[in-house]
Parts: sequence; structure tokens; C-alpha cells
Amino acid sequence: MTQQWWVDGEEAAPWPADDRGLRYGDGLFETMAAPNGRIAHWDRHRRRLRLGCDRLGIAGPGDATLADDLERLDLSSPAVVRLLVTRGSGGRGYAPPAQGACRRLWQVSAWPQIDPAIYEAGIRVAFLHTTLARHSVLAGIKHLNRLEQVMAARELQSLEVDDGLLSDDTGAIVEAVSANLFVRHGAIVTTPPVSECGVAGVVREVILDGAADLGIEIRQGSVRRADVLLADEVFVTSSIRGVVPVRSVESVTLADFSTARTVREYVDAQAVCA
Amino acid sequence: MTQQWWVDGEEAAPWPADDRGLRYGDGLFETMAAPNGRIAHWDRHRRRLRLGCDRLGIAGPGDATLADDLERLDLSSPAVVRLLVTRGSGGRGYAPPAQGACRRLWQVSAWPQIDPAIYEAGIRVAFLHTTLARHSVLAGIKHLNRLEQVMAARELQSLEVDDGLLSDDTGAIVEAVSANLFVRHGAIVTTPPVSECGVAGVVREVILDGAADLGIEIRQGSVRRADVLLADEVFVTSSIRGVVPVRSVESVTLADFSTARTVREYVDAQAVCA
Repeated sequence: MTQQWWVDGEEAAPWPADDRGLRYGDGLFETMAAPNGRIAHWDRHRRRLRLGCDRLGIAGPGDATLADDLERLDLSSPAVVRLLVTRGSGGRGYAPPAQGACRRLWQVSAWPQIDPAIYEAGIRVAFLHTTLARHSVLAGIKHLNRLEQVMAARELQSLEVDDGLLSDDTGAIVEAVSANLFVRHGAIVTTPPVSECGVAGVVREVILDGAADLGIEIRQGSVRRADVLLADEVFVTSSIRGVVPVRSVESVTLADFSTARTVREYVDAQAVCA
Repeated sequence: MTQQWWVDGEEAAPWPADDRGLRYGDGLFETMAAPNGRIAHWDRHRRRLRLGCDRLGIAGPGDATLADDLERLDLSSPAVVRLLVTRGSGGRGYAPPAQGACRRLWQVSAWPQIDPAIYEAGIRVAFLHTTLARHSVLAGIKHLNRLEQVMAARELQSLEVDDGLLSDDTGAIVEAVSANLFVRHGAIVTTPPVSECGVAGVVREVILDGAADLGIEIRQGSVRRADVLLADEVFVTSSIRGVVPVRSVESVTLADFSTARTVREYVDAQAVCA
């Protein structure tokens, strides 16, 4: 491995084979950008992790523990930081232990090569056949049950596009494989809700919260295939790549990246402030 | 840990922190009974694992590798054997690596204390609020995305019953938390299909395949709450506990365990033969 990792604060410690994260995906994770020595939007990542722990009934790490962890990370060069928190070991089968301690894994890896052209020229996306199951108790949080995304990424590997759009079983578009989706029609920007499935992405939240600052009407609402195909502008958002314009959806070409550019500058500015 | 484990054949080896099983639940598992020095229904477990690997596109371990692994296990006292196979390490995010090697974890732990009274007196079950999402690509196989079962087991901990019945979002009963369900009405025994969600349990398969030998009409079909509440007999099946009669569903009491007893004897006999 070309990365550093810490298990419960101990560098390069082994991961226990009886951990419930491995057994059942019983945990959560955050993938975070640290392009300049600090984790962008750390407070939002920390809050989403806390929300996920609450939802799953995991006694997550306290703020002091996380602050100690952060001190250990070497972020002197641009890095991707991954924090994974599981319910730890124990319990009888699926049933969690009565008094369980969570386990945490921090991983720091080198910043990936991202082609800067994607921000100027946009990416190509297609609709995927892989669907997301609707399941409200797990919706929105970034849990470790990610086989749907793995299957979607496998489907994507067979296509000549850069990303894929996932629907639920009603045909509603939810998100891209590892990014949230925004579509603009005239002056109104819409992103699908994540109340039944999908992940409440941190950059998505920054944008929703920043609508007033941005002076853009941004709302959560139903997005169907036709809404994507007839959009004036489409962009996807994620913690590592930020805001990325879409230049084609299936055979439909998009040429206007202006809102994506405005939103991207805003998100980047927010990251520095955090 | 009070158990032995092997990672890719190496005893007590560490589990890599970048494994995709931990990251995404990108893998499968089998929980198997070895009550008398051999793994019951091993061939069926092996086949289900193979099917799961095929479905997820994981190049699973070959038969020779698994045979070597089996030689290492100390099954001199009654044990539960757990085999976990993941897609291994690597890939870009969710996307699997082009040429990935699977990783396997064998774990042997002591046979659990099972109260023999459950086979004579039956267990109490209730309907759970936790639902199972319908998702055909993952249905039937025993993958590592088990948060639904963890949440169901948490709900069960708050109830004064022994097991819980899970429905999908249409209200169809699918299975118990970690067991399959059978209901008998008159001469006909029904078990819910596992084509949209649920696990195709090994003992369930033994029973379905053995219907002719058993001289019982056993079919896969829709089971709703009323079908459970109005059943003449209800039983649940799993690899570790085998065939367990149900003595109450919510406030409804059941007194006839005769089919469960017949089926249990048949399943146990099949396990010895395997």
C-alpha cells in the first residue's frame, strides 16, 4: 500500500478480522479532500458522520478523539483522507453488542491526478441500468453497504462515458455513481432528494446552503430522465472532484457551463474558509 | 478473539485495511455448521458462494484452494465456520480493479450454546417494522451488505421475542432476521421467494430439493402477514440452528410442530450424508 493508515490512533495497526464493518458493512465513511494541508469542509464531514452514527445506533468517536486523530495526519502534500468508523467487534451475529466501542480507520493517500480539462470541457454521462433500492433508514448517510455503487461502477466500465446516472426503481434519477447531480432549467437548479436513497453529499449541502449567497434558486425536487435530457445545464458534485460540468448526456450535448463555474468557485471558496 | 482465523491461508494474518470488503461490503460470506468434524452441506455452501461471486463479478477461490483451506481447519470440537470472500484490494473508488485477486478469510469459533428446548417448545416471533429493500441484482446471494439485518436485529433487541419477520416495502414477508421462513396451511408448505430480496438459505434449499423425499408439497410463494397469522404451522431455518418451530406469532399461539420435526430430521440426515 502506498498510503498511511491508523487504526484507533495506532499507525499501520492491523484491522481485526472480526470487525463488524468487514462482516456486515456495519459502519460509515467519509472521503475528504485535503488539497492544501487542511481537510476541506471538515465540519460538515464530521457532522454527517455523527448523523450516520446516530442513525445506525453506533456510539461514534467524540470530537476530542477526532481532533487528536487529525493531529497525526501528514497533510503536507495534497491528499485524500478517508475516515471509516465501524461498530467495532462483537455481538451475536447481526445483533450489535450491548456495550460496543466503535473502531476508526484513518487513511491518507496521495491526491489523485484529475484532468483539469474536465472543468473546462465537461464530462460525458449516461443513464445506467443499475438501480438504487429505496430504503429510508439508510438513505442519505454514507454507510459501508456500497455494493450498489460497485455494481454501477462495473456497469460504467463497459461504457464509453465518464460517469453514470442512477435511478431508483420508480425511474427517478438519484445521483451519479459517486457524485450528486444538479440540473438547471432556465433560472432554477434542481438536485434530487436523498430521503429514500442516495448520499447527502457534503458539496451538495454546501451548494444548497449557499443558494442565497450564490443568488441562484436551488431546490430539491424530482428529476426524471427527460429533465436531464432537456436541461440547460447539468453538473455533478463530489468531495474530491468538486463541481464538474457535464458536456453530454447520452447523445444530447450541453454547451453552457456557466452555473457550474459559478458554483464551483463558491464551493472552493467555502472550503478554504472552513 | 477466542477464534482461529486464516487470511488467504495464513493463520492469524492481518486483514488489509484497504480491502474492498471493509470499504464497500464488496464480497460474500458463508456461515456453516461443523458439529461433528465436517462442514454440514459444504457443497451447497460452496455452490452458493460461487453463484454470489459470479453475480458480483468476483473471481472467487477455486475448488482446489478451498479444499486446501479446509485441511487447515481444526474441527475436532463442534464449531461454527465462517468463510468470507472479498474482491480484495484496489480499484479506483467503487470501480473494481481490472485484474483483481479475491481475498478469503476463514474463521472457526466454538459451537454456540443453543437451548435444546427451542426444538421441542418452539420460539416466539413478531413482525418487525424494519423492511428489506427489493433489489434483484443482490437478491438471494449472501453478500456483505447486511445493514438491513443489523437494523432488524437492533429492533429485535427491544422486543420480548426470539426472532422477527421482515417484509419488503409491498408488505410481503421475506424471511426472519437470520433465517428463512416456512408456513404450512393444511398439506401445503410455503416459503417466500428470494428473487427480489432475502437470502437463499442452504437449509431452505435442502428442504425445497427434498420435498419429494419428504412427501410434502413445498412451494415458493407469496406470504403475507395474514398467511403467517392463519398458518397451521410455522418454522424457520438456518445453517446453525437448523429447523426451528415457531410457537407464537405476535399474540397467535401455534401448537403443531409435526412438519417442522419431520423436516428437521430430514435436514440433519442430509447434513451427515454430505
